Amino acid sequence: MVSVTQTERDRDIIHATLTQLVVANRILAREGIIDNFGHVSVRHPLRDDRYFLSRSRSPEIVSRDDIMEFTLDGEKVSDDPRSPYAERHIHGAIYKDRPDVNAVAHHHARPVLPFTMVNQPLKPIFHMASVIGTNVPVWDSQDEFGDTNMLVDSMEMGHSLARALGGGRAALLRGHGAICVAQDLRAVVMISIGLRDNAALIQSTLALGPVKYLSDGEIEKTSAMLLGEMPLRRAWDYWVARAGYSGL
Amino acid sequence: MVSVTQTERDRDIIHATLTQLVVANRILAREGIIDNFGHVSVRHPLRDDRYFLSRSRSPEIVSRDDIMEFTLDGEKVSDDPRSPYAERHIHGAIYKDRPDVNAVAHHHARPVLPFTMVNQPLKPIFHMASVIGTNVPVWDSQDEFGDTNMLVDSMEMGHSLARALGGGRAALLRGHGAICVAQDLRAVVMISIGLRDNAALIQSTLALGPVKYLSDGEIEKTSAMLLGEMPLRRAWDYWVARAGYSGL
Amino acid sequence: MVSVTQTERDRDIIHATLTQLVVANRILAREGIIDNFGHVSVRHPLRDDRYFLSRSRSPEIVSRDDIMEFTLDGEKVSDDPRSPYAERHIHGAIYKDRPDVNAVAHHHARPVLPFTMVNQPLKPIFHMASVIGTNVPVWDSQDEFGDTNMLVDSMEMGHSLARALGGGRAALLRGHGAICVAQDLRAVVMISIGLRDNAALIQSTLALGPVKYLSDGEIEKTSAMLLGEMPLRRAWDYWVARAGYSGL
Amino acid sequence: MVSVTQTERDRDIIHATLTQLVVANRILAREGIIDNFGHVSVRHPLRDDRYFLSRSRSPEIVSRDDIMEFTLDGEKVSDDPRSPYAERHIHGAIYKDRPDVNAVAHHHARPVLPFTMVNQPLKPIFHMASVIGTNVPVWDSQDEFGDTNMLVDSMEMGHSLARALGGGRAALLRGHGAICVAQDLRAVVMISIGLRDNAALIQSTLALGPVKYLSDGEIEKTSAMLLGEMPLRRAWDYWVARAGYSGL
Repeated sequence: MVSVTQTERDRDIIHATLTQLVVANRILAREGIIDNFGHVSVRHPLRDDRYFLSRSRSPEIVSRDDIMEFTLDGEKVSDDPRSPYAERHIHGAIYKDRPDVNAVAHHHARPVLPFTMVNQPLKPIFHMASVIGTNVPVWDSQDEFGDTNMLVDSMEMGHSLARALGGGRAALLRGHGAICVAQDLRAVVMISIGLRDNAALIQSTLALGPVKYLSDGEIEKTSAMLLGEMPLRRAWDYWVARAGYSGL
Repeated sequence: MVSVTQTERDRDIIHATLTQLVVANRILAREGIIDNFGHVSVRHPLRDDRYFLSRSRSPEIVSRDDIMEFTLDGEKVSDDPRSPYAERHIHGAIYKDRPDVNAVAHHHARPVLPFTMVNQPLKPIFHMASVIGTNVPVWDSQDEFGDTNMLVDSMEMGHSLARALGGGRAALLRGHGAICVAQDLRAVVMISIGLRDNAALIQSTLALGPVKYLSDGEIEKTSAMLLGEMPLRRAWDYWVARAGYSGL
Repeated sequence: MVSVTQTERDRDIIHATLTQLVVANRILAREGIIDNFGHVSVRHPLRDDRYFLSRSRSPEIVSRDDIMEFTLDGEKVSDDPRSPYAERHIHGAIYKDRPDVNAVAHHHARPVLPFTMVNQPLKPIFHMASVIGTNVPVWDSQDEFGDTNMLVDSMEMGHSLARALGGGRAALLRGHGAICVAQDLRAVVMISIGLRDNAALIQSTLALGPVKYLSDGEIEKTSAMLLGEMPLRRAWDYWVARAGYSGL
Repeated sequence: MVSVTQTERDRDIIHATLTQLVVANRILAREGIIDNFGHVSVRHPLRDDRYFLSRSRSPEIVSRDDIMEFTLDGEKVSDDPRSPYAERHIHGAIYKDRPDVNAVAHHHARPVLPFTMVNQPLKPIFHMASVIGTNVPVWDSQDEFGDTNMLVDSMEMGHSLARALGGGRAALLRGHGAICVAQDLRAVVMISIGLRDNAALIQSTLALGPVKYLSDGEIEKTSAMLLGEMPLRRAWDYWVARAGYSGL
């Protein structure tokens, strides 16, 4: 009997995780972070060696039935005939290399793109962007892989990107986009939006004069506060309301 | 009997004030002034030593039940268990220091942010922005408080900010956002939007050539006109229609 | 009997004109040309010495009942107690001074504002903006009237502005906005949008290199084509569909 | 009996093509590529010497009944009394000169316009724009035709433009707009959006530092991947969902 109860509770936990993943997809679409391409995943809440990710679909239209389960090597767990994202290895490699990370987003938010090419650091200049961390490195697929179709479509490329990310919360891909990682889906949405808004703000500020970044102390204290339970819950409620979709 | 009538009238006045506060929340969200964080308050219409403010919630989804009453020191009046905004002290400190002010908004409208960092005055350059006043000072939490989590979360910080504001209608917070104050909620919305639009306009104008600010005489005459009853009512009707929410 | 029929036909003509005026209000709001302030009028289709204009209301919410009739001197024709726009004299003065003009719009479309201040001509750089004409003059209320509340709120100011406009299709007001004039409401909407889009386009082009304006011959031929019946009808159908309001 | 079946299958093919053409119209409107003017066509799926294009209407409101059939010389096939686009010759000339092309879009997406005037190449700087190809030439109607109304309204002008396009996927028209061509409607939408987004991105990147274009090898490999069946289907599903219109 105990084991049955255990199973039911597990099912509830998984169900809640999948629901939140679908909502995160819709939010990232609604907030203009992800358009036709890009994706967001979550680590399996009960197994460190698995993650959930939609089949190859635009986040705007992802629903529960689209979610698939993968090993960290990107193998499908069931014999689902549907096509996964070619770039799912971004997610698996990061989950392998970063045990503290439970959610990963890959997107091409336009204001971020210039920073993948020019010699201008994408550091926090306002408090809501402190969550991106003090350093956002740039990874260039050319360095190790030469001319490619620019997809991170192998575990080898995924680990290369994960090495560039290091212990950070975001990294940029030259001429391509960004990855954001966090302890949960709410935080990875906040980091994705903070990265985009900070990038846009540096651009408009530089046109007026020299940028004054937050101090390292401010970044540490402000991000610790924003990634706490209350701000995350308040922000999530807001995004859910705007997305018009609570997963139900 | 008289006292009963008095009480009913009082209740009507308070009800109208709370309704307008909820609508102001929705308007500031709809107009893109406030997103997940930021807030707007109104002084109690019958007691100078109290103000109304939502519990910790994004203005986009604030409704009547969310409004809480505070003393100017930021203490809850009832034993409501819900969490207030950590930054409510902005409101209390200003209501204490500025008896002429009955409405306060705190927001992070993006075009305003560059002016919190660079040496470029945020002065009115077009008639609709005359309401922000001739001088919008910048307050930097570093100056008195060093590295913080950047929230104005104590009465001490609130009063420091209020001193920077002085007798003005708006002030900027370095790397953070802005506060706007006015005689009523309609005016504080107009000032918030004027501040944002003026900031954006200075940026696009400077890219073309030197900015020509309004003269002090124009600012005085035009703001007096715009903050009059008829323009405020016309603007409010417009914002209510766009927000799709009249508080009913 | 003939006179009765005549009257009915007249009524139909006036009704169609008023409907189109309401729709033009909604379109200019939907297209982001007019926000809380600004207005659009049409000359009376049967009397050159009268014009129609909403009471003091934001175009976004103007409906048939809001339309008032004025003499060219800005006097109300009926004893309607409602307040007219203080700036209605822009319309009357232009209708007096420009017999070829049957529709006038006054707005503060943001991308236009920088050109009211800097020494940079607002000349057509792409075909759809040819309708603004070869020269868009700037009028500064300071020159004749000194420090004011910046409203064009007298016939004297209206005629001053009309003199600056001359025989053109648009003029700018320093630190304030623009006026656009045309033979009908559809054309005045096209000119208003063309002015805004051209202003935005000059700004983004100048950031890349020197602007190449249309030649005078191109402006003449292209504007004659665009202000013809077929392009006006096609554009109007588009704007009506977007505004979601056909006046019915 | 066989011939009847054949006819039914043909009718199905044509019906599917027309439906996709209507949806492409709505998508290009929804994505902000085409506003009141501009158009998109498809070659007849069963006859190389014919193409389908809406009557003179804004793509936002095009529906099945608006589609007309033309010879490559721009002659109507039926005696439909409705007016075609004056610029339909863009489509016919390209279908004549480029047997590999089955879909053509002509638009005036604003971020593209500066590149029609300044000496700045519109080359891919991020992977999703690789589909525009390595070289986007500029055609100036002045060179061969002098002062015109700027419409490409004859087969002579259409062929001149097609010569400038050469074997490419997009070309620019000075002070006017762009044309995009592809093997099918889904690809022509992807190229149109990629062209617009790349143009906007070059502008924001140049403000920060020198642009790093994709390498020729990256352009070739990435565009081959993106113009494949799976990415096109995934993107199309996304655009259809956003347009809220599946042609049914």
